[in-house]
Amino acid sequence: MISRSLSRFVVESSWRRIPDALRHEAKRSIVNVVGTALGGSGDAAARRSAETLAPFSAPAEATIIGRRERMSCLDAAFVNALAGNVFDFDDTHPGTIIHPSAPVAPPLFAFAQRRAMSGAELLHAFILGVEIECRLGNAVSPFHYKRGWHITATCGVFGAAAAIGKVLGLDATRMLWALGNASAQSCGLVETLGTMAKSVGVGQSARGGLLAALLARNGVEGPERPLEGPRGFLQVMGCDPDLASLAAGLGERWELPRNTYKPYPCGVVLNPVIDAVLSLREQSRIDLGPVPAERIAGIRVFGHPLLGERADRPAVASGREAQVSAQHAVAVAWLDGRAGFGEFSDARVQARDVLALRGKVSVHHEAGHGVDGARVEIRLGDGTVLDQIVTAARGSSGNPLSDAEISAKFRTLAAHGCPGFDPEPLLDALWRLDEAPDAGSVIALAAFG
Amino acid sequence: MISRSLSRFVVESSWRRIPDALRHEAKRSIVNVVGTALGGSGDAAARRSAETLAPFSAPAEATIIGRRERMSCLDAAFVNALAGNVFDFDDTHPGTIIHPSAPVAPPLFAFAQRRAMSGAELLHAFILGVEIECRLGNAVSPFHYKRGWHITATCGVFGAAAAIGKVLGLDATRMLWALGNASAQSCGLVETLGTMAKSVGVGQSARGGLLAALLARNGVEGPERPLEGPRGFLQVMGCDPDLASLAAGLGERWELPRNTYKPYPCGVVLNPVIDAVLSLREQSRIDLGPVPAERIAGIRVFGHPLLGERADRPAVASGREAQVSAQHAVAVAWLDGRAGFGEFSDARVQARDVLALRGKVSVHHEAGHGVDGARVEIRLGDGTVLDQIVTAARGSSGNPLSDAEISAKFRTLAAHGCPGFDPEPLLDALWRLDEAPDAGSVIALAAFG
Repeated sequence: MISRSLSRFVVESSWRRIPDALRHEAKRSIVNVVGTALGGSGDAAARRSAETLAPFSAPAEATIIGRRERMSCLDAAFVNALAGNVFDFDDTHPGTIIHPSAPVAPPLFAFAQRRAMSGAELLHAFILGVEIECRLGNAVSPFHYKRGWHITATCGVFGAAAAIGKVLGLDATRMLWALGNASAQSCGLVETLGTMAKSVGVGQSARGGLLAALLARNGVEGPERPLEGPRGFLQVMGCDPDLASLAAGLGERWELPRNTYKPYPCGVVLNPVIDAVLSLREQSRIDLGPVPAERIAGIRVFGHPLLGERADRPAVASGREAQVSAQHAVAVAWLDGRAGFGEFSDARVQARDVLALRGKVSVHHEAGHGVDGARVEIRLGDGTVLDQIVTAARGSSGNPLSDAEISAKFRTLAAHGCPGFDPEPLLDALWRLDEAPDAGSVIALAAFG
Repeated sequence: MISRSLSRFVVESSWRRIPDALRHEAKRSIVNVVGTALGGSGDAAARRSAETLAPFSAPAEATIIGRRERMSCLDAAFVNALAGNVFDFDDTHPGTIIHPSAPVAPPLFAFAQRRAMSGAELLHAFILGVEIECRLGNAVSPFHYKRGWHITATCGVFGAAAAIGKVLGLDATRMLWALGNASAQSCGLVETLGTMAKSVGVGQSARGGLLAALLARNGVEGPERPLEGPRGFLQVMGCDPDLASLAAGLGERWELPRNTYKPYPCGVVLNPVIDAVLSLREQSRIDLGPVPAERIAGIRVFGHPLLGERADRPAVASGREAQVSAQHAVAVAWLDGRAGFGEFSDARVQARDVLALRGKVSVHHEAGHGVDGARVEIRLGDGTVLDQIVTAARGSSGNPLSDAEISAKFRTLAAHGCPGFDPEPLLDALWRLDEAPDAGSVIALAAFG
């Protein structure tokens, strides 16, 4: 009775019993994903999808983050989820590698502009949606992603359905139908990663989950066991799914506190490498005065085997490819003193100084590093050796971003995606979302153009 | 290069080279599915889905079959595909058990009301869409359905994308992207069968395929190998997929001629049983005069093992359940002289005469029968034994429905779903679809209410 248990849990959950720390983590997740949506709003995949849907989108009720036009809540859910995830710069649930917020927060905000809800209502539904999404992800991991399912999309549709079901006040049976209608739409393939089609799966997960709950409210019935049934989600898209822990400790053990936020818009294995280079650059500046790249003889990067497998990429042709190149990440971090969107642009990939320094970087395995750790060793022409070990990269579970760092990331993303937009009123309203009487008017502050 | 080959095939196909018999089969499929959509248009799943989507549906451009309102082409694709398949009374592609037309014809008709196309254009795109859909189904069968994928929905989204891509005139690269955007949306679980959630998957396959092609036209790019790539559709949702035959004989060997049309709105294993009972009833009426059910001592049904596995169901509670009860099918076929919607209604399930006769029916395995064959033996109280063997049930590959029978089925469906609707103008226009200058005005004849 897993489907029933999860449904009942969502229906019966009460805001009063949500711990403060969990409420706060929900705000951190939401600030982060609205930020990544602002940053992604101008991306071609987002723009072209919005343009494709525009002729069919009515009423003009819901804000498209970072854009001027409004669309139906269904289409806004699609476009905003897409924009939030398009750069893979959003949050990560370790273990499953789900990006939890993109499929869940955008449909809630979009629906909040259709049917009034408080910020607390939205946060509560968000916490529950992420819980369902990540618990399902846990149950089918690691098989599911390895097999080729884009887990953010496949599990996200259930999170969105549960979240919207909660704000609709569905009873347990209709909540079960919402999960059933979500199961009929669970989709997303890893083959599409690195292309715009990935975003079609993510957008659809948000839209599909919202639709699933609306259908359930209107009496579109689903099966009794959409999740654990013999031809249901867990059995078909999992392999020996972990059913025992799926509904254990509901309301006591939560998934959202495990959420992490990416500090750099690139492959997560590069985080400790960039940290180490930025730290070396700062130290050397103090110790030796500014060190021009010409004085560098070689840079050796040491880390976990995954680092070499995923990111030992000396030659790169595009910004997208540079996001998984240790050589590129090291070069721009040293040269520019940061690793943001600008440093992973096509232009920077072609730049002569980056090209020259990239050629001096090599990647090596070294025992003792976890995926969140790395060591970087810089040899200067005069024989000086600079060396830095990082054990818990910024943004990892062991070294989470502070609220201030998440705010800074938000501002950077806003500046990248929406130059000229003043992010402060929105940022301030999001940090006080739990006190907002009307969540819809908060997201309306994300309109721009 | 399977994805590229299929894309190029669709792009390069020319109507002039489509054989006449294939063109005619396309019309048979389309008459059949528009008929089942008329019949299903009043079903609760169709009505509730349409009502859920209505507040978000604009412009009012595309006919909802059997209803008065118009919706956007995306939503009309969803609702009409749902209605066409809701009773599982539509067509069947043997081997895969795909219902090919429901995901492909409705988006084409809906889009024809947005962008003018001739009947021939529509038929051509339909033939190609069904070809892609069924070839993909062949490649992943039988694993795919057995594993729990609702193959009509999972493969249908590709058929719809290819068909719409064709009428959009996409080039080969954009057609490939359309398949990629479809792959990101391929979904549908067998666990939902027997509930309204099944229809959510089927509706989404039609809508998703249409959207996939529209996105591709607007430059939303997909991967190079959405089908055969290591994390693409065939590998993730198949097991050891038959890649060799997938793109072999394109344009020479076609799938649509294998399509079959159901004569009765119930499980396909019951077709030969109903045929046998109707035949016995007719014979006995001539030989013995009308034989009242009270004179029947017992009825034994013999068939393929699947008959017993799927349909040995003496007690049934609902019309939906009666669709897979041999006992019920035998009883109503004898009592009513037909096996249509009325005979599989909740009311008929509860009727005293049906209840009494159902109790006299037993199901047995007998060697020598295929799934399209059965034997029925009726013992009368006076010792007379009536016996009938059927080797190729009506509607099977060996005994296809004639055009006249498909027309008769169309009329019956229209009368069931839309009492008072005159089906003749629509029926006539559909049979002459290849000559129609404007396919959109043909489907506009399906509006009612």
